[in-house]
Amino acid sequence: MSGATRVVGRSLPRMDAPGKVTGTAIYAADFALPGMLHGKVLRSREPHARLLRIDVSRAAGLPGVRAVITAADVADVRYGGSVKDEEVFARERIRFAGQPLAAVAATSPEAAAAALAAIEIVVEPLPAILDVAAALAPGAPLVHEGWADYVALPILHRERNVCNRARIVVGDVERGFVESDRVFEHRFTTRSVHQGYTEPRAAVAHWDSAGHVSVWSNTQLPFEIQGTLSEILQVPSSGVRVIVPGVGGGFGGKLRVGVEHFAALLARKTGRAVKVMTTSEEELTAAYARQPAIVELRTGVTRDGRILAREGRLWFDTGAFAGSGPGVASVATLMLAGPYRIPNLLLEGYAVYTNKTNFGSFRAPSGPQANFAVESQTDIIADALGLDPLEFRLRNIVREGEEGPTGQVLTAVGLEECLRKAAAAIGWAERRPAPGRGKGIACGWWTTTGGSSGVYVKINPDGTVALNTGAAEIGTAALTGAAQVLAEDLGVELADIHVVSADTLSTPFDFGAQGSRTAFAVGNACRAAAADLTRQVLTLAARHLGVEESALQMQGGVVTAGEGRRATLAELARLSQASGGGLIAHGTFVAPPTPYDTKRVEGHVYPAFHSPSFHAHAVDLSVDAVTGEVSVHRYVVAQDVGFAMNPTYIEGQIEGGVAQGLGQALSEEILYEDGRVLNANLTDYKMPTAVDVPRVESILVQHPSLVGPFGAKGVGEPPNIEPPAAVANAVASATGVRITDLPITAEKIALARPERPA
Amino acid sequence: MSGATRVVGRSLPRMDAPGKVTGTAIYAADFALPGMLHGKVLRSREPHARLLRIDVSRAAGLPGVRAVITAADVADVRYGGSVKDEEVFARERIRFAGQPLAAVAATSPEAAAAALAAIEIVVEPLPAILDVAAALAPGAPLVHEGWADYVALPILHRERNVCNRARIVVGDVERGFVESDRVFEHRFTTRSVHQGYTEPRAAVAHWDSAGHVSVWSNTQLPFEIQGTLSEILQVPSSGVRVIVPGVGGGFGGKLRVGVEHFAALLARKTGRAVKVMTTSEEELTAAYARQPAIVELRTGVTRDGRILAREGRLWFDTGAFAGSGPGVASVATLMLAGPYRIPNLLLEGYAVYTNKTNFGSFRAPSGPQANFAVESQTDIIADALGLDPLEFRLRNIVREGEEGPTGQVLTAVGLEECLRKAAAAIGWAERRPAPGRGKGIACGWWTTTGGSSGVYVKINPDGTVALNTGAAEIGTAALTGAAQVLAEDLGVELADIHVVSADTLSTPFDFGAQGSRTAFAVGNACRAAAADLTRQVLTLAARHLGVEESALQMQGGVVTAGEGRRATLAELARLSQASGGGLIAHGTFVAPPTPYDTKRVEGHVYPAFHSPSFHAHAVDLSVDAVTGEVSVHRYVVAQDVGFAMNPTYIEGQIEGGVAQGLGQALSEEILYEDGRVLNANLTDYKMPTAVDVPRVESILVQHPSLVGPFGAKGVGEPPNIEPPAAVANAVASATGVRITDLPITAEKIALARPERPA
Repeated sequence: MSGATRVVGRSLPRMDAPGKVTGTAIYAADFALPGMLHGKVLRSREPHARLLRIDVSRAAGLPGVRAVITAADVADVRYGGSVKDEEVFARERIRFAGQPLAAVAATSPEAAAAALAAIEIVVEPLPAILDVAAALAPGAPLVHEGWADYVALPILHRERNVCNRARIVVGDVERGFVESDRVFEHRFTTRSVHQGYTEPRAAVAHWDSAGHVSVWSNTQLPFEIQGTLSEILQVPSSGVRVIVPGVGGGFGGKLRVGVEHFAALLARKTGRAVKVMTTSEEELTAAYARQPAIVELRTGVTRDGRILAREGRLWFDTGAFAGSGPGVASVATLMLAGPYRIPNLLLEGYAVYTNKTNFGSFRAPSGPQANFAVESQTDIIADALGLDPLEFRLRNIVREGEEGPTGQVLTAVGLEECLRKAAAAIGWAERRPAPGRGKGIACGWWTTTGGSSGVYVKINPDGTVALNTGAAEIGTAALTGAAQVLAEDLGVELADIHVVSADTLSTPFDFGAQGSRTAFAVGNACRAAAADLTRQVLTLAARHLGVEESALQMQGGVVTAGEGRRATLAELARLSQASGGGLIAHGTFVAPPTPYDTKRVEGHVYPAFHSPSFHAHAVDLSVDAVTGEVSVHRYVVAQDVGFAMNPTYIEGQIEGGVAQGLGQALSEEILYEDGRVLNANLTDYKMPTAVDVPRVESILVQHPSLVGPFGAKGVGEPPNIEPPAAVANAVASATGVRITDLPITAEKIALARPERPA
Repeated sequence: MSGATRVVGRSLPRMDAPGKVTGTAIYAADFALPGMLHGKVLRSREPHARLLRIDVSRAAGLPGVRAVITAADVADVRYGGSVKDEEVFARERIRFAGQPLAAVAATSPEAAAAALAAIEIVVEPLPAILDVAAALAPGAPLVHEGWADYVALPILHRERNVCNRARIVVGDVERGFVESDRVFEHRFTTRSVHQGYTEPRAAVAHWDSAGHVSVWSNTQLPFEIQGTLSEILQVPSSGVRVIVPGVGGGFGGKLRVGVEHFAALLARKTGRAVKVMTTSEEELTAAYARQPAIVELRTGVTRDGRILAREGRLWFDTGAFAGSGPGVASVATLMLAGPYRIPNLLLEGYAVYTNKTNFGSFRAPSGPQANFAVESQTDIIADALGLDPLEFRLRNIVREGEEGPTGQVLTAVGLEECLRKAAAAIGWAERRPAPGRGKGIACGWWTTTGGSSGVYVKINPDGTVALNTGAAEIGTAALTGAAQVLAEDLGVELADIHVVSADTLSTPFDFGAQGSRTAFAVGNACRAAAADLTRQVLTLAARHLGVEESALQMQGGVVTAGEGRRATLAELARLSQASGGGLIAHGTFVAPPTPYDTKRVEGHVYPAFHSPSFHAHAVDLSVDAVTGEVSVHRYVVAQDVGFAMNPTYIEGQIEGGVAQGLGQALSEEILYEDGRVLNANLTDYKMPTAVDVPRVESILVQHPSLVGPFGAKGVGEPPNIEPPAAVANAVASATGVRITDLPITAEKIALARPERPA
């Protein structure tokens, strides 16, 4: 495919490079309006308490303070995606340490902070549910006493502190265990990690006199935020305009309302524009960090290494609100199967309320947690069977044309190629090259999220092209990928595409920059619009040049008819603007939604992975004999991307995903004590820095998707999935120590070693 | 038509009313960016001079000054619409008093003004050409010595100080005069008047690091400004984004680059956002006020009052640059024919260079000047023939199906109805009800300007509709009219339409808010988009409801299938967003451009009036016996609007157009002495105020256009055409004094009276 293309498949510079390189790009955190006020949020220090009294009178009288709002100033509505259990400010009950209690707008951030300190709060602390075990204990108190009355998606299975139980059942898992030669049972645990986006969440809101509010936000999902703000503010959704100026990273942490509602409420109260931006402390205590998980796996295999049955359960700590937990629990069931052909499955995912912040989606949500368990156990089983872990995987992985765990027929399955190439690149033949040094491998699959994308496209009078898309560019260069598709199809250069994006009023609906879908779905919508525009251009050119349309060629911004007859796109655009209405078009694309209704068993809607990607990670590392400290020497990713739209930026996604994954694997963890975060700052919360991250070698495997533009699959999330498992397997290979609780710190390794080496 | 409609044809409140009423609407003059600088322009005091030296060093060193630019800082390009004769700053030759010489950006308007005063200029004054007669005199010096080398539209006829001569020839005018019983020759003159928009011209410019500039401007024509800035700044047009926040009136005065280029140049130089806004003095000395005109008419008639022949010439003083002069001269030829059936015509329009500001387009450009001459002479001839002026008109006006002067077949000709209704309303039977009191009538026709309009339209998840149009709302409520069309066709309410407009990047091309075309052309583009969306909605609803499309009805935001089966637009939009790509569409419309190639005679391209409107004005006034002061008692307008999309706003257009027309008729005049404006302030430049303007009675005649949406014709410009002629005719009726030079001041009447009454 790439041989015949000009723009797609090439490592062209991203469209937004100049602003990023020169530091002049406007992010939401930079965005300002004249006369703008600054908002700050007062948050609970108690994880669970009754809110007895809140007195803002002293705060409201401080210099520069323009408004102080509490629950009393907000419509008494509960909002939320799958379960409407959230409220803007705690009203009577505080459910986590970090929950908003009040917000202030003042003429400076300092004045706002001073006002926060002047708000008087009286609470009555209550015993808190601090982990999943406590939440599930018989007779456990309820995080939400009114859970049964909440509005929730009908497909959820809720009970008490469980806000969803997802389940898939295939074959007969008990019979499978009976038929197995050996059955392995393990338990794995992971902790909460933060997305670590560079830019804090930020929003500026401004109301006009028609009662419409405009919100400039660094959200990944402007249309989702529009809907939520509509509920909170009690205005029709079209009265809320959400515009995304620029996003300094999201990774799933900016999917849901974070500061936008505070900005909008304070702006309405003050009649002024208001900006609200989070601190690092707020990010680590009250954002949508990754759900901590407990995974129990029971897997039955034959002596010769065929997996016959698996029973798996994953419990997510979703914190005080459901948030994305119910959906992620559903996706987790597919991840527990792993990319393996297993005839008998009983897999369950749970989202469980606790008195912590509402954990949320983070790059391949459920992926790293489930994969850490599955791929750790895969190695354990291989070792127990005396099989090479690579060979054991190759005997069980899904192949072209086979069914996935929920019945979808799998096509473009490049997993074997990924495994073999990653293994070859890491030098798998020599798994333990030296004492204390070992290699590990892990593989997985992931979805290309569906959802609708629409685009408007027009040809400008200088022959360039303007693309309106509702998708935000969140730093992945995915819109560059979509623009490459448009440029390819219209026969122009990437530099000729001008993008306006992510404005709920002026751009078409888009399901948003989530789920590795942007280049895929927006790219396909661009193809539809380009096809329409090409027809228009050829019709106009044929009339203009006096030839049949069939005699025309369109390439390089020029339509040629042979015999020297030609018209540039610029000329044709001007001609159409002068006397033809202008060259404009629209295009839409939709992929089947996930989860979707392929199957529904006992009331459980089965998810499926659309245009799934496949990947294998391999790592070569050493473990310090004394301290247990891990040094990663090499890291290889072989990823089936379908079609490499822009190899450089895919490699960038892989490098970034691995860096984040190594953080979760080795060092990152939001530490709690009595329901309060101990390390709510970027000194004590240990993200890897440039010196910690090895050079990542990327191998782009290309088994073209039948649906993606030019065969492309989603690429952004997958690189974050396998690092914990790959590292755990390499550490086990290097040391014989199997760590089943993330992060794999030096301390854990050192303490787990049976004895210190001499 | 209106009986069957819900939204069109109703006087619904305009969409932008809340912002206007509460004063919170953001106009370009209000628009601000953080850290923005303020720009001011140094202008020549000499009408004609050699620029010997310009020294900005002292100015550049003053506090707060961030940049001072002159011609030396600007690419040496000449720009302009039909003739590229303009330059940003005078380079060697100064051609009018008011021409820009330098511009300053500073941290405050005051600092910028102080810097202007510190710029040292040395000039050598030259003799100036101050009127058309001087410009046309044999051996007159040239305003542009290099005129022949300028790039110009090939259809222009240029020679020395004439930058266009337009001509139409019909029949044999000399033979027509021979066959006439009487031939009348008259000369009429008009002066320059300013559009009097409330908001001065204003622009804010900001460059990004990719070398693209965004300009927030109150232009009527963002796409035109984009093209001009591209030439001046020497960047591709798609590197220039022009956004119109809001416009406080345009009337043709904001069609061309005014302050945008200064803002963009200063912003590029300083690396900061820069705002430039005009003062009243700049508006009255260096804006695009209406061209002064000289009109000579020779008209041959039969004894029984049939017009057989007319030779007419109109000379526009276009000032130092061609600007819109060449095009307006062409339109003038049609206006010299008047709305009359005249078998023999020789009509010419001239645009002539002088050393004055570049006069330009003003609401029905050429209309008031030509109509004042034509309709004054019509009354003179009727009086001379002993015919009632109304009766004389009725014998000669064009009728349904007849050809216009350049051969177009006229349809929907409501002129007789307009004349009869206006006459009846004013009480024409009693033309001179008292000494010193008289009634006058005048009629005319005007075009609905063609050009392309494109729209993007989507249905929002709350069932409302978002419309993207490239047209700016300049205060006429024309976009409300277009939105009414969209609401009508989609079966929703006007309040359900949300508009984003006039952004060269995010909205489709639009020929712009000019020529009474916005509601007409954007409305038709909306109809195309609505038809597409309706098809999409019905297809989706049929599938959703399980019925045939043919069984569906779409109205009031609901699709019904009988038997209680129904789906709201909101439901269908959400359904489509969830699993169908979203309900989005585009639509375009183009009307034949004006001028156009219906005929081309001896190299002259003949203009035509698309979907012409017809109108008659009648006025009842008194003239003070001593002072000559005119008091207008009643003013009646009967206008064939085709279809009254929104009667209230059409009446508003009529009232405003009459007010402006009475200003030109009675008091307004930019006074020159030695090439300098004497009354460059709003105290000495006499615009009518609320107490000067009578109550205007509007009669909306509806002969539906075959092309306009629901039959609508352009309505914005026409009300400005006839007031001078109607007033002149009424003054003559009241006093016997015929004033042929505008404005008809008390002084002129008093001095022209043969003797004072007793």
